Amino acid sequence: MTKPLISSYKKLLEKTKNIVTLSSAAAILHWDLETIMPPKGIKLRSLQLAMLSRIGHKMSTDPAIGRLLEETMKHPEYSSLDSVHKRNLYLIKKHYDEQTKLPEELVVETSKQEAITIDTWKKAKAAKDFLKFKPELEKLFNLKKQAAEILMKVKETATPYDALIDIFEPKMTFDAISKVFKELKQGLISVLRKCEASPKQPDTSLLKRGVPIETQQKIGKLLAEFIGYDVKSAKSGGRIDETEHPFTTGYYDDVRITTHYYKNKFASSIFSILHEGGHALYEQNLKSEWMFQPVGDACSMGFHESQSRFVENIVGRSREFWIYFLPKLKKITGNVLSDVDLDDFVHAINHVTPSKIRVEADEVTYGLHVIIRFNLERDLFANKITIDELPQIWNESYRKHLGVNIADDSEGVMQDTHWASGLYGYFPTYALGNIYSGQILARLEKDVQDWREQISKGDFRNVKQWLVKNVHSIGNLYNPPDLIKNITGRELTVDPYLNYLHEKYSGLYGF
Amino acid sequence: MTKPLISSYKKLLEKTKNIVTLSSAAAILHWDLETIMPPKGIKLRSLQLAMLSRIGHKMSTDPAIGRLLEETMKHPEYSSLDSVHKRNLYLIKKHYDEQTKLPEELVVETSKQEAITIDTWKKAKAAKDFLKFKPELEKLFNLKKQAAEILMKVKETATPYDALIDIFEPKMTFDAISKVFKELKQGLISVLRKCEASPKQPDTSLLKRGVPIETQQKIGKLLAEFIGYDVKSAKSGGRIDETEHPFTTGYYDDVRITTHYYKNKFASSIFSILHEGGHALYEQNLKSEWMFQPVGDACSMGFHESQSRFVENIVGRSREFWIYFLPKLKKITGNVLSDVDLDDFVHAINHVTPSKIRVEADEVTYGLHVIIRFNLERDLFANKITIDELPQIWNESYRKHLGVNIADDSEGVMQDTHWASGLYGYFPTYALGNIYSGQILARLEKDVQDWREQISKGDFRNVKQWLVKNVHSIGNLYNPPDLIKNITGRELTVDPYLNYLHEKYSGLYGF
Repeated sequence: MTKPLISSYKKLLEKTKNIVTLSSAAAILHWDLETIMPPKGIKLRSLQLAMLSRIGHKMSTDPAIGRLLEETMKHPEYSSLDSVHKRNLYLIKKHYDEQTKLPEELVVETSKQEAITIDTWKKAKAAKDFLKFKPELEKLFNLKKQAAEILMKVKETATPYDALIDIFEPKMTFDAISKVFKELKQGLISVLRKCEASPKQPDTSLLKRGVPIETQQKIGKLLAEFIGYDVKSAKSGGRIDETEHPFTTGYYDDVRITTHYYKNKFASSIFSILHEGGHALYEQNLKSEWMFQPVGDACSMGFHESQSRFVENIVGRSREFWIYFLPKLKKITGNVLSDVDLDDFVHAINHVTPSKIRVEADEVTYGLHVIIRFNLERDLFANKITIDELPQIWNESYRKHLGVNIADDSEGVMQDTHWASGLYGYFPTYALGNIYSGQILARLEKDVQDWREQISKGDFRNVKQWLVKNVHSIGNLYNPPDLIKNITGRELTVDPYLNYLHEKYSGLYGF
Repeated sequence: MTKPLISSYKKLLEKTKNIVTLSSAAAILHWDLETIMPPKGIKLRSLQLAMLSRIGHKMSTDPAIGRLLEETMKHPEYSSLDSVHKRNLYLIKKHYDEQTKLPEELVVETSKQEAITIDTWKKAKAAKDFLKFKPELEKLFNLKKQAAEILMKVKETATPYDALIDIFEPKMTFDAISKVFKELKQGLISVLRKCEASPKQPDTSLLKRGVPIETQQKIGKLLAEFIGYDVKSAKSGGRIDETEHPFTTGYYDDVRITTHYYKNKFASSIFSILHEGGHALYEQNLKSEWMFQPVGDACSMGFHESQSRFVENIVGRSREFWIYFLPKLKKITGNVLSDVDLDDFVHAINHVTPSKIRVEADEVTYGLHVIIRFNLERDLFANKITIDELPQIWNESYRKHLGVNIADDSEGVMQDTHWASGLYGYFPTYALGNIYSGQILARLEKDVQDWREQISKGDFRNVKQWLVKNVHSIGNLYNPPDLIKNITGRELTVDPYLNYLHEKYSGLYGF
C-alpha cells in the first residue's frame, strides 16, 4: 500500500494544476492570435491575455503556496517523499520564489506589451520598416530588462542576461554557453570551409520547382503520419496551420504546430513540419500521470530544440529517410520531381552555404546565426549597444561571420518573432539543442544499431519509442545539465555533434 | 464641463470590464472547441473552461461589488446620473444579485458538464444514438434545474422555467409568450394551409444541384461583403468557419460566424451565413463607447434573433435581393444555375412545407418547430415529462403539429445543440425574434420607403444604417418589452409579422 501524500503537498499540486490549466488556456488564445484571429481583434486579445496573465500571476504568488511549501518541507514525512515529489516541490518553490519577486503590474504590462509588439512586428516586417517596430520593441525590451534585474537576485545569477537564460535553460550560464559555443563555432567553420572548397556542389534548383500549396498540405499530412503526429483521426491531438513564423504550442492532448507554405520552396514546409513535429512529439509524450505537475513539463527549451532538430535534421535530412520518402514525394507531386535522383536530392537539401535567414539555414551554418544573436543579446543587456543600433550591428555581424549582405531589416533584424514576443535568452537554446541532439544520437546509435535501416523502410517507431523512453517521458525530472548526463553518460560536449556533421558532410561533399 | 463620475461607480465599471474581458476570452475557447480543436483536447478544454467559469463567478460575486453598489446608490450625486449610468447600475446589480445566489460549485460543475455534454452530443448525433447522449444530458439538465430553482427566487418569477427565460429575454414570461405564441400558431397554420392548398408549387429540385464546397465558400464571402461583414481585409473583425451547427460568437472587434456546407444543398450555407451575419452585425455595431459596460451588450437573444432573421429572411429571401444576387450566383457557379428563372428561384427558396429540421425550416413552419420545443421545455421543468421520454414525445409532437415522421433521434431530439449546451429557455427567443422582426420591418418601411428597391440594386447600406441606429447602437439600454415599444411605438404584437408573411406568401403562392 502506498502511503497517503502529505496533505499540504497535495494542496500544492492542486494549486499547480490550476496554474497550468490557466496557462494552457492562455496558450490557445496566443495560438489563435498568431494564426487565425481577425486583425481587428488585437486590442481585445491583448486585454484578454493581460487579464489571464494577471490572474496567473496572482495564482502563482498566492501566499498560501509559501505557507504550504514551508509546512511540507518541515513535515516529519518530508524526507520519505520520493524523488518525483521532491522535484515537484523544488520546482514549485523555484517558480514561487521567482514570481513573488516580480511585481504584478510588471507582469501584466509585459503581457499586454507582448501582444502589441508581436502585432507591430508583423506589420513592420511586411513594410520592411524597422522604425515602425522600434518604439514597441524598446518598450518590451525595457520591461524584460526590469524583470531580468529582479530575477538575477532571486536566481543568484552573475548577470541579468544569465537570469533570462535560466528561464529557458535552467542552470545554464552565459559563461558555460560561451565556452561550448567557442568550440562549436570553430567546428562549424571548419566544416563550412571544407564544404565551400569542395568541387562537388549540389544543384539546388530542383528545390525551386513549383509545388502547389494544396499538394504541400498533403505532403505535410504524410510527414505527420510518418513521425506519428496525429492530425486526422477522431483521436487526434494535433493540428497543422499556417503562420509567418512556424511554431508549436499546446499541452499533452492538444498540441498544435504551424508552418509556412511557399509555392517555389516546397522543402521549407517539409522541414518546418518535421521540426515543429519534433517539438509536438515531446509535448504529446510527456508522462500522462504527471500531467499538471511541474515534473510533467518538458525539461528545457534546449531539450525541446534537441527533439525538433533531431527529427528535422538527423532523421529528416538523412539519406535513409529519403530512400523511403522520395518515391512518395514524387508520386504526390505528379511529374514535378520525376527525374530527380536520390543522391542529388539529398545533397540539395543538405546544401551548405552562408545565408541570411536562420530558419532556412543549413545544419552547418545554423549555429553561426544563433551565435550572432547570442552576442547581440549579451551586449543589449550589458548596455553596450542600444535597440537603435541593432539593425546596423546585425547587418555588420552577418557580413563578418557569414559573409552575406542584408538588404533590408525584414530579412535582417526583424526576421525572427522572438524579440517581438519577449523571448530574450531563448536563442542560445537552439544551438544547445543541436549539441544535445548530437549526444543523444551517439547514445541512440548504441541502443538501436539499425535505426538508419529502419528509417529507410519508413519505420520511425523504434526511434520514436527510444526518444519517448529516454527524453520525453522523463519530463522535467532533472535540470538540463543532469538530464544530458543521465541519458548519454557525458557532460555537455560538442564533439558528438561535430563528429556527426563531419561524417555526414564529408560523405556529401567528398572531403 | 461634464461632472466626474462617482468614484465607486467608476470602480464598478472597472470590475465589469474585467468580467466582460474574461468572458470574451472564454468565448474564444468555446469557439475553438466547436470549430477546430483537436478531438483529444476535450478534457483539457473542459478543465480550462471550468476554471475560467470559476474565476468569472468569483469576480461576479466579489463582495466589493455589493459594497460599491450600495455606496453608489446612496451617493448624493446618484440622482443626477444620466439614464445610461443608471441602466449600467441596474444591470450590474441584477447580475450581482443573481450570481451571488448561485453556489460556485454549481457554476463550475455546470461549465464542466456543458463541455462534456456538447462533445457527447456530437458523437451520439453522428451515431444516431440517444442512449449515448442521455446520461450526460440528464446530468446537465439537473444542474440547470438547480440553477433555475435558485434564480426563480432572486428574479421573483412564477416558475423555474420563467427564471431561465428571463436570462435570455429579460422581463418576458412563459404566460406572455404563450399568449403571443397562440396567435402566432394560428396565423402560421392559416398561411401554411393556404400554401399547401395552392396549385402553384415551386420546383425545389434546382436547390439540389451540386455546388462544390470551394464555390460555396466564395459565395459566402460575397454575401458577407453584401451585408458589410468584413472577413477579408487587414481591418477585418470577422471569420467564417465550419461547424455542424452554425453559430455566432464574439464581442465588438472579433465576431465570428460559422456555417455548414453541403454539396447538394448550396442554399443551406447561403442562408446560414446571412442568418449568422445578421447576428454578427448586431455585435459589431454596438456602441463602441459602451464597450465593456453592461449597456454595451445586445438587448436580448430575441432581439439578436430579430436581426439574424431580418437579414436571412426579410432581406435574404426577398425577390429584391435575388434580382441583385442571382446573376452573381449564376456567374460564380458556372453553368450549374444558368437556366434558372428569377421567380422560380425565389419561390424555391421560399418553399413552404412541413419538415423535420428547425434550422432548415421555412419562415412559415419555423415557428411551429419552436413552439414544440417551448412546450417540451415547459413540461420538463414542470416535471411532467422526463429526459427518458423526450425522443418519443418529440416524435409524437412532430407528427401531430407538423405531420412528419422522425426516422431517428439525430433528425429528432438531437438535431439542435441547445440542450447539450445548457441553453434551456432559449428556444422561444427564436420565435420572438420573428415577431420583433415583423414589427421592425413595419417601422423601417415608414423610414426607408424604397428599401426594397435599394436592395435590388445590391445596396444594403441604408437598411444596415437604420438597423444600427435603431437597434444595434441602442445596446442594452432597455429591456426587450421597452425596446420594441421605443423602436416601433407598439407593444409586442404578432400582427405585423403575420401581415408580412401573408403578403409575401400570397404573392408567391397566388392565394
